[in-house]
Amino acid sequence: MIYSKDFNVRNERNLTMLVDFYELTMANGYLDNNVQDKIAYFDMFFRRIPDGGGYCVMAGVQQLLEYLSDLSFSKDDIAYLVSKNTFSDKFIDYLKSFKFSCDVWAIPEGYPVFPGEPLVTVKGPIIQAQFVETMILLTINHQTLIATKASRICRAAKGRPVMEFGSRRAQGYDGAIYGARAAVIGGCVGTACTIAEEMFDIPALGTMAHSWVQLFDTEYDAFKAWTITYPDNCVLLIDTYNVLRSGILNAIKVFNDVLKPMGKRPKGIRIDSGDITYLTKKVREILDEAGYADVKITVSNSLDEYIISGVLENGAQIDNFGVGERLITARSEPVFGGVYKLVAVENDGVIIPKIKISENAEKIINPAFKKLYRIFDKTTHKAIADFITLHDEKFDENRPLEIFNPTYTWKKKNLKHYYIKELMVKLFENGKQIYESPSVMEIKAFSEQEVSKLWTEVLRFDNPHAYYVDLSWNLWNLKQGLLNHYSEILEE
Amino acid sequence: MIYSKDFNVRNERNLTMLVDFYELTMANGYLDNNVQDKIAYFDMFFRRIPDGGGYCVMAGVQQLLEYLSDLSFSKDDIAYLVSKNTFSDKFIDYLKSFKFSCDVWAIPEGYPVFPGEPLVTVKGPIIQAQFVETMILLTINHQTLIATKASRICRAAKGRPVMEFGSRRAQGYDGAIYGARAAVIGGCVGTACTIAEEMFDIPALGTMAHSWVQLFDTEYDAFKAWTITYPDNCVLLIDTYNVLRSGILNAIKVFNDVLKPMGKRPKGIRIDSGDITYLTKKVREILDEAGYADVKITVSNSLDEYIISGVLENGAQIDNFGVGERLITARSEPVFGGVYKLVAVENDGVIIPKIKISENAEKIINPAFKKLYRIFDKTTHKAIADFITLHDEKFDENRPLEIFNPTYTWKKKNLKHYYIKELMVKLFENGKQIYESPSVMEIKAFSEQEVSKLWTEVLRFDNPHAYYVDLSWNLWNLKQGLLNHYSEILEE
Repeated sequence: MIYSKDFNVRNERNLTMLVDFYELTMANGYLDNNVQDKIAYFDMFFRRIPDGGGYCVMAGVQQLLEYLSDLSFSKDDIAYLVSKNTFSDKFIDYLKSFKFSCDVWAIPEGYPVFPGEPLVTVKGPIIQAQFVETMILLTINHQTLIATKASRICRAAKGRPVMEFGSRRAQGYDGAIYGARAAVIGGCVGTACTIAEEMFDIPALGTMAHSWVQLFDTEYDAFKAWTITYPDNCVLLIDTYNVLRSGILNAIKVFNDVLKPMGKRPKGIRIDSGDITYLTKKVREILDEAGYADVKITVSNSLDEYIISGVLENGAQIDNFGVGERLITARSEPVFGGVYKLVAVENDGVIIPKIKISENAEKIINPAFKKLYRIFDKTTHKAIADFITLHDEKFDENRPLEIFNPTYTWKKKNLKHYYIKELMVKLFENGKQIYESPSVMEIKAFSEQEVSKLWTEVLRFDNPHAYYVDLSWNLWNLKQGLLNHYSEILEE
Repeated sequence: MIYSKDFNVRNERNLTMLVDFYELTMANGYLDNNVQDKIAYFDMFFRRIPDGGGYCVMAGVQQLLEYLSDLSFSKDDIAYLVSKNTFSDKFIDYLKSFKFSCDVWAIPEGYPVFPGEPLVTVKGPIIQAQFVETMILLTINHQTLIATKASRICRAAKGRPVMEFGSRRAQGYDGAIYGARAAVIGGCVGTACTIAEEMFDIPALGTMAHSWVQLFDTEYDAFKAWTITYPDNCVLLIDTYNVLRSGILNAIKVFNDVLKPMGKRPKGIRIDSGDITYLTKKVREILDEAGYADVKITVSNSLDEYIISGVLENGAQIDNFGVGERLITARSEPVFGGVYKLVAVENDGVIIPKIKISENAEKIINPAFKKLYRIFDKTTHKAIADFITLHDEKFDENRPLEIFNPTYTWKKKNLKHYYIKELMVKLFENGKQIYESPSVMEIKAFSEQEVSKLWTEVLRFDNPHAYYVDLSWNLWNLKQGLLNHYSEILEE
């Protein structure tokens, strides 16, 4: 995997071997049973939106592109695999000359996405289409989790900028790096993670820590030294000793003593502990009275969407938020449960849909090679529903379209003034990359636009309306037929 | 950062730039104010054990060694930093010839560790000792979190092997890779993450997924094909359609049809869904009756320490556990809140202790350059307490030692039959690495031994006894003096 095109070659990584061991034992088994070239179709999808939210934000496609275009086994990898005494010589030879040849589709990053619909589809020889499972899931699960959480947090801030500050509490280095990327896609204005700016061209931000203040003999001395070094971008951290008795007073003194004679304005103050609502109200008053109504207040102590909503409701005076551990780990629900399931195979060129039934009804999959559409209202341009069809079904947008609830099929809706958009794009054709990802800042803007097309009922934090993800009658009938078939077999 | 000495050069990474941006603005500020070479002492420590547990398991030191021994800024890094228009020429020149020169101490991996004690101490020029904050926290926070969670889960399994299966749900690639490493340190017997075996020489494990079963026309065909390929290591996944009506019956049929004629025994079956207690009891009966009492049952569906305890209490028949998302993300509490705080500076060679006071009493730090000891009972060899002293205090183990509760100082204990062990080792001297890390499997064995030295009251899942972390009278008096000093200043 290449971190980014222009980035330091010291940071190239190949993650081909980041694979669950059973993908390798299965691949060896496919070859051993001479089914390795059977064409298989896999869907990645998820079943539940974290935090009881109404939508997720797709993220991670760029890293999928890098991983898939770089799939290869090094001499060391081969030597390691031989040492396991588990794999046939034929399989080892296959890996030595491995060449990725699948077709891959995905929903572009930034789109709001919903349970039950394919986010990624892979078509190709089963030996390959199976192998990429771990990395597809790992990549999309992680970044979609964080982008979704960031979207919630940024909406709670109601337009105030939110900065991602969580590197130190992330789950590993990539948790920090790709987490920062996903946080910006989800709505953050920037990150404290410097390497993420270098890699993704997203703004890196930050000023001082408490240790700066502690190093000097007095808080005043510390602020003064800082202000002389950064007169044009002066943000002071005022809670090392005591916000109201010490920090804000020393800050204003330094603004007056150092910046005023230079004819410069301070940029802001930051508070990282204590009762945020109380302190920011008091600090706002003190700043305003001292003639610093333009100085911004940044707050950064264990925040998430719930706390941000709460303090704003209570009248906290905050201009910017720095959000750390609860964003970078999606602390309230730190797992995005995407799965990767076989949905079809080809027998002599004919696509045979496959289903996995389960003791849990909600774990049943949508079989077959499919297409995914989003239906918009022609007047409002709001998203009405997502619509999954068989891959070769045709639409006539000029005719009314009946959609229905796939569980309660009597709940129907007849759409007239609508237009449809196919959601997935093709990333790879016969293993060749044919899609270029936009920049992260472009994805961020795109995501904001697409999320704004959702009804407020879907955007709501608490008990949002479940967005419709409907199946065409053809797909629904096919699914029911497969379920009945297996149910009968098991009854026998 | 080098992944491991023998590992594929394609996977070398330098993570010098994985740093919060404010570390760079502060470093530039130190230089600008000519305090860059002031000797500073920082401690990394944590305040709370996740999940209400009684201890944590230290992990991540090996990666700290790699990071710190590889600190350097590439030409690309320098060009990027120049482009920010934030840093002085002097600072940029400093980075170009950057050479790490700090002393670093840490508690070796595998030790049980406790709130309030230093896990890592850095001494050196403030410009450097400050800079490494982000990566020290990120590294130790992540791996200690996962090792601690793994230790809980493995203890819940009461001696049954636990395998780490969570790569696909990890928070980023390193979340999977270093998470697998930490999980093994915490007690897991192996991981599904193949690259982790290549990198750390920890066992990679795994057999088949549901898609293998789906690919064939019947479950019987799928099991048969697998068994012919892996007659010596045959583990079948029996829940693709229905465990009792289909999976276990087909498995036994294949054991009889394929393995018996070869004179081979099957290894096991795996169940990944449904009511684990009920299914494993039934499957155990069926296997036993069919003459397969030696076949192991592995279970792997959304497990953690609570579910494992519960199903075992209810008589579930399980030999091995595969644990996924709830281990690799420490789902129940996915943040380890380690912090990195300035505790002292040197003025003309004299060490001046520093403190950060706070509105929250429990957030107050232990000041000064310190030493950390573990006190053991001479007869039982159980750990009695950890004991923090000033760095130059002397002990006489032949004399009684009074320890006391640092909050309720009247709670005292006079120790007679004890011996002490210094916990921290020196990793770097003047920037030169002087410590070599044991292998992961050695750390795992060491950890098991050291955790077994804790009293069962500390090991308990619910409301464990709080292990004593006490201060020497000298350190306690110094801390109170500093607190009184600041309290008086703020009253003025």
